[in-house]
Amino acid sequence: MAASTSLTAAQALIGRAVAVAGQSPAHPDRLALPTGFGLSALAGRALKTSARQQQRVARPRRAPMVRAAAVETLEGTAAAAPPALVEKSVNTIRFLAIDAVEKANSGHPGLPMGCAPMGHILYDEVMRYNPKNPYWFNRDRFVLSAGHGCMLQYALLHLAGYDSVKDEDLKSFRQWGSSTPGHPENFETPGVEVTTGPLGQGIANAVGLALAERHLAARFNKPDNEIVDHYTYVILGDGCQMEGISNEVCSIAGHWGLGKLIAFYDDNHISIDGDTEIAFTEDVSTRFEGLGWHTIWVKNGNTGYDDIRAAIKEAKAVTDKPTLIKVTTTIGYGSPNKANSYSVHGSALGAKEVDATRQNLGWPYEPFHVPEDVKSHWSRHIPHGAALEEAWNAKFAEYERKYAEEAAELKSIITGELPAGWVEALPKYTPESPADATRNLSQQCLNALAKVIPGFLGGSADLASSNMTLLKMFGDFQKATPEERNLRFGVREHGMGGICNGIALHCPGLIPYCATFFVFTDYMRAAIRISALCEAGVIYVMTHDSIGLGEDGPTHQPIEHLISFRAMPNILMLRPADGNETAGAYKVAVLNRKRPSILALSRQKLPQLAGTSVEGVEKGGYIISDNSSGNKPDLILSATGSELEIAAKAGDELRKEGKTVRVVSLVSWELFEEQSADYKESVFPSAVTARVSIEAGSTLGWEKYNGSKGKAIGIDRFGASAPAGRIYKEFGLTVENVIATAKAL
Amino acid sequence: MAASTSLTAAQALIGRAVAVAGQSPAHPDRLALPTGFGLSALAGRALKTSARQQQRVARPRRAPMVRAAAVETLEGTAAAAPPALVEKSVNTIRFLAIDAVEKANSGHPGLPMGCAPMGHILYDEVMRYNPKNPYWFNRDRFVLSAGHGCMLQYALLHLAGYDSVKDEDLKSFRQWGSSTPGHPENFETPGVEVTTGPLGQGIANAVGLALAERHLAARFNKPDNEIVDHYTYVILGDGCQMEGISNEVCSIAGHWGLGKLIAFYDDNHISIDGDTEIAFTEDVSTRFEGLGWHTIWVKNGNTGYDDIRAAIKEAKAVTDKPTLIKVTTTIGYGSPNKANSYSVHGSALGAKEVDATRQNLGWPYEPFHVPEDVKSHWSRHIPHGAALEEAWNAKFAEYERKYAEEAAELKSIITGELPAGWVEALPKYTPESPADATRNLSQQCLNALAKVIPGFLGGSADLASSNMTLLKMFGDFQKATPEERNLRFGVREHGMGGICNGIALHCPGLIPYCATFFVFTDYMRAAIRISALCEAGVIYVMTHDSIGLGEDGPTHQPIEHLISFRAMPNILMLRPADGNETAGAYKVAVLNRKRPSILALSRQKLPQLAGTSVEGVEKGGYIISDNSSGNKPDLILSATGSELEIAAKAGDELRKEGKTVRVVSLVSWELFEEQSADYKESVFPSAVTARVSIEAGSTLGWEKYNGSKGKAIGIDRFGASAPAGRIYKEFGLTVENVIATAKAL
Repeated sequence: MAASTSLTAAQALIGRAVAVAGQSPAHPDRLALPTGFGLSALAGRALKTSARQQQRVARPRRAPMVRAAAVETLEGTAAAAPPALVEKSVNTIRFLAIDAVEKANSGHPGLPMGCAPMGHILYDEVMRYNPKNPYWFNRDRFVLSAGHGCMLQYALLHLAGYDSVKDEDLKSFRQWGSSTPGHPENFETPGVEVTTGPLGQGIANAVGLALAERHLAARFNKPDNEIVDHYTYVILGDGCQMEGISNEVCSIAGHWGLGKLIAFYDDNHISIDGDTEIAFTEDVSTRFEGLGWHTIWVKNGNTGYDDIRAAIKEAKAVTDKPTLIKVTTTIGYGSPNKANSYSVHGSALGAKEVDATRQNLGWPYEPFHVPEDVKSHWSRHIPHGAALEEAWNAKFAEYERKYAEEAAELKSIITGELPAGWVEALPKYTPESPADATRNLSQQCLNALAKVIPGFLGGSADLASSNMTLLKMFGDFQKATPEERNLRFGVREHGMGGICNGIALHCPGLIPYCATFFVFTDYMRAAIRISALCEAGVIYVMTHDSIGLGEDGPTHQPIEHLISFRAMPNILMLRPADGNETAGAYKVAVLNRKRPSILALSRQKLPQLAGTSVEGVEKGGYIISDNSSGNKPDLILSATGSELEIAAKAGDELRKEGKTVRVVSLVSWELFEEQSADYKESVFPSAVTARVSIEAGSTLGWEKYNGSKGKAIGIDRFGASAPAGRIYKEFGLTVENVIATAKAL
Repeated sequence: MAASTSLTAAQALIGRAVAVAGQSPAHPDRLALPTGFGLSALAGRALKTSARQQQRVARPRRAPMVRAAAVETLEGTAAAAPPALVEKSVNTIRFLAIDAVEKANSGHPGLPMGCAPMGHILYDEVMRYNPKNPYWFNRDRFVLSAGHGCMLQYALLHLAGYDSVKDEDLKSFRQWGSSTPGHPENFETPGVEVTTGPLGQGIANAVGLALAERHLAARFNKPDNEIVDHYTYVILGDGCQMEGISNEVCSIAGHWGLGKLIAFYDDNHISIDGDTEIAFTEDVSTRFEGLGWHTIWVKNGNTGYDDIRAAIKEAKAVTDKPTLIKVTTTIGYGSPNKANSYSVHGSALGAKEVDATRQNLGWPYEPFHVPEDVKSHWSRHIPHGAALEEAWNAKFAEYERKYAEEAAELKSIITGELPAGWVEALPKYTPESPADATRNLSQQCLNALAKVIPGFLGGSADLASSNMTLLKMFGDFQKATPEERNLRFGVREHGMGGICNGIALHCPGLIPYCATFFVFTDYMRAAIRISALCEAGVIYVMTHDSIGLGEDGPTHQPIEHLISFRAMPNILMLRPADGNETAGAYKVAVLNRKRPSILALSRQKLPQLAGTSVEGVEKGGYIISDNSSGNKPDLILSATGSELEIAAKAGDELRKEGKTVRVVSLVSWELFEEQSADYKESVFPSAVTARVSIEAGSTLGWEKYNGSKGKAIGIDRFGASAPAGRIYKEFGLTVENVIATAKAL
């Protein structure tokens, strides 16, 4: 296949592939069905003709025509159905949602009923995807930021032919073990890109997905081969719009000019507490204009199919700005007594209202029924999607032939395979290496990793020079330089986390890191929790990790943060003490692609300690020094991060007095808990009850390692504004206090 | 004194009081100083005349004229200084900031240098306050949302005569034990209204302060006596603007039409990482227009004093919208080599640049010097402030005479004195009372309290009907009905927390509560932490507190949240199990005015248990049942909230088998830890090591009560989407599992 020379030509290439798709798909016969394909030649024009006009000209055509014509439809994807069939498909979506919620007696029917038209157009006419390979790299991404309306997406995935949402999955909506949970979860349902539900997270993820596309396209596309080329679509509701995170990410998306991000704002005027008049009367479009977005208003999102299509076309034509399409809809459209009210938002309609809605929309079918013509129409997405992927594979083969080096790099990003020997790039330290703050040691690691891992990128929420997160060999990712890898998030911690989740979930080889002061994880905790839940291996670089930051005072000094993350499932809380432990923390963080990591790093200088190691970090807790034998020291001192130095010094002092002392680094509790019982016993022998821990944070939780008879030195109050040394002294985080506490045991 | 009949007349009343102020203030002689008062008659016109014009006409006047004229100045407050003196005062502010940061070798000189002009105008010309009583109820409130620039505020408080910031306090900026910490902290520095530093919190607090004023004014003002009447001013920077929380609160402030909220946006184009061009290019004013604000742009905030004055006048004239005054300034104004760069944002200038700045601004003085004329000019604020308060007191006396009932109510709000017998209003329950979800029992308490406590108000982040937080006897606080007490925050959890902090800190008798699902504390954690730090007794009503919420799935199910708040200083984490415990939790929450409370409440129905009590809750942990004697049960079962029922049932079963079992409710760990060692031993005798806890959350931390030999039943993974009963079973939160675990011990 000859290389194409432009994006248009590239799309024609995909079109050609459609013509040969009959060779591979599961049900090639469905391609010949006349229903959906008669309009194909019209699809380009459909943007300008009314639904009624389309209906008039619709007529069956021969299959070969269909195949050739498919490429002429809206943006080169599958042909649209005739208006009556569109309506039928839209109602199918509505009733699948209604029926699933009714059967579960739990869920949110209102949004799917209102958004079914835009959902239909996106999945049936606009988006490029392969239902049989939900992970095809170059697919368009769709994010339902208003995640409670997930039955919309499940219905669409079902119609499109995704294996993750079969008939029985719709029937077990919101049940134990089903692939159709109460909110969209990427780890449960292939075809769902991210995990939404907590409002505003989805639009943030979408910005991350769009950023990833723009970055990879800028790095890898060639004039003759635009190998990275997809859109990111998102539906967000009034709730998402009210959340601060959405303003944060839309502000930065406008700044970055992410032209292939197209957001549908489901403007239905209803939130849980009633009409948005009671709390949300801002002019959203004006705000988005202020944020640098292109805005469009579709005034009739319920039946204005052509307006929706036209809006998408317009949005695609604006390439230097993201677009917000405000689509005014009726929540619960079709329900005669509950539409346009909060009562249809989050509860089943009830048998009586379901009947009334069936009556009202002329829907004579049994629950969960998909009419044959609708099924047939949608069935073309299986061969069509296979063809899209096949064409892209051919394109990639061509790319590989001409640009071997770039292709290898892109491939590693797509597959997530780490380059051989990457670990060797991490810096190594000896006790003689100069003392340094772990935030500085972290920067050495970041720069070392970015050199060898092609998908490594990230930045800080306006604290790059404090967090020490700049990649020195790269410039800034900006509108004009999207190929660069330093991300400037601005003071938008929450948005930063959500964006990084999107980047991480774009493809396995993208490894985003992001940074702020550790205490400001409070601003982004909801996004961090989603990282953990949705298995996005984001690396959180959190500096200024204790009262050790000094003068900025208690608003800036974390106290309860370590324990609060140790309690969070599926996340690694790492607090390295020096260079080797920082390198170890990065090794662990990079290897854990389905589990995010938080690195708590010091502002203040710390010595390189004897006994620390990368291997130790991998075990989470380990002995850095011990002068006892037979696993029976007189005393065990445990610490993390900047306090390991204090424990080590106290250990030295006590040994001088003839005691046998073990000093343990507990750099990651989670990793330590994963070790064998034998290993844990070898570090904390149950026979040794004299144990003292020291950590510049809450003492809560340390009972786990100190036992009932041990003592925890820590901080169970807020910090204070003063030079760090003074606060350490005042708070008793000193060698002297460790020694005194140990002796009192 | 005769009652006045309008707001204008009321201001004249204050003016009259100024004339008699000489009777009480500490330094009445300073009133006669000519320096600052010559311009008083001009002040009204000053808004339209240039600084140069003002200079020309400035001349000394007699003291009596001064006193009479003071009321004619901008908005009836103290007279402005002549331009040269204004400039000198502004430079005094700049150098106090420069010198304090230099001495501490730590801090943020850039903002004070740039914002000194607006700071001067606010504190010297516009704001009504009494330096000798920072808590005077009717004072104008000022919030430095860009809290890192706190030396601006300290300098202003110092000049204005507040005892909290004396010369020696400026010299101990950011030092241990000083009243001038690294960020503004209300609990350290009287005169500072709220605690800022974490960006965006201050503007949220300011919205809360303005809401409080609007609400109280609507409830208590009379046509002839506007007893509640003050403005809320705030300075916020680029950082605040980027934070999502600020968009949330500005959206709702626009919706509420808080006309007496005036925000200065310090538009200096610099954030820590450099020029805002790298991450923040949105059109802020357009966004605020979308949010329903009035916007003004002062293009020269460095020397455009009259423009600043005119903007304030214009802002005050717009009474139905909050106003954003975008003031373009130069960060570090006056520093020849560092102005307009990030290097002046967060570090001392350094001796050389301090010298250069002194040179550049013509400042011949020693560090920390306040020139005599500046000192003299500012000194009038002491008598002026006393007079303002005195006049208001007279006005209140008049109010009290005419409106005794309202006055008593308002007084209780101002002082925070709770009405006698309020506790009796809380509902009581017996084991025979119907089973109910604690969220419903909570609503009974909220409604009972709102009936008897005049300052009780609050609402939910768009979940009122799920959180069960509506006060049934009141309507919605809205633009047209600000006297009502149901707050509709919209889906803005973070903003809601920040607003409630502002309400709580407005005056001691306002008791705000706010609500969302417990898991969404993640969205508002930064604001909750500020509640705890700044001693704002906000009541957080957090429902759907576990996997017990069922089908919504893991994004909505808290796991690590209980422990994460137990570790946070100065906050009460309460998880009541039934009606009596819910009432007890509210009793504790209302009594703790300087410590916020979080109530974790169930979505699901729970029985009224035997043995629970309000008194028990006050102790944090207590025995609800026990069939042992001599404080030596075979087994101790501990639980909180919805799992207390499971523990109680398991206890009953085990007792049937002849075991002696104690069942302990640990409703608040913090309160339990505050009990005497004897009491704690009486609940958890050290001799009893067979202990099992059950709680639908992280097991981390339970070692504290289970000891090394006990077992914690809990959840250390994410939840799942399914009916609640099924998840409880799958996760082992069952009577059977408690029994089996206990037997295995």
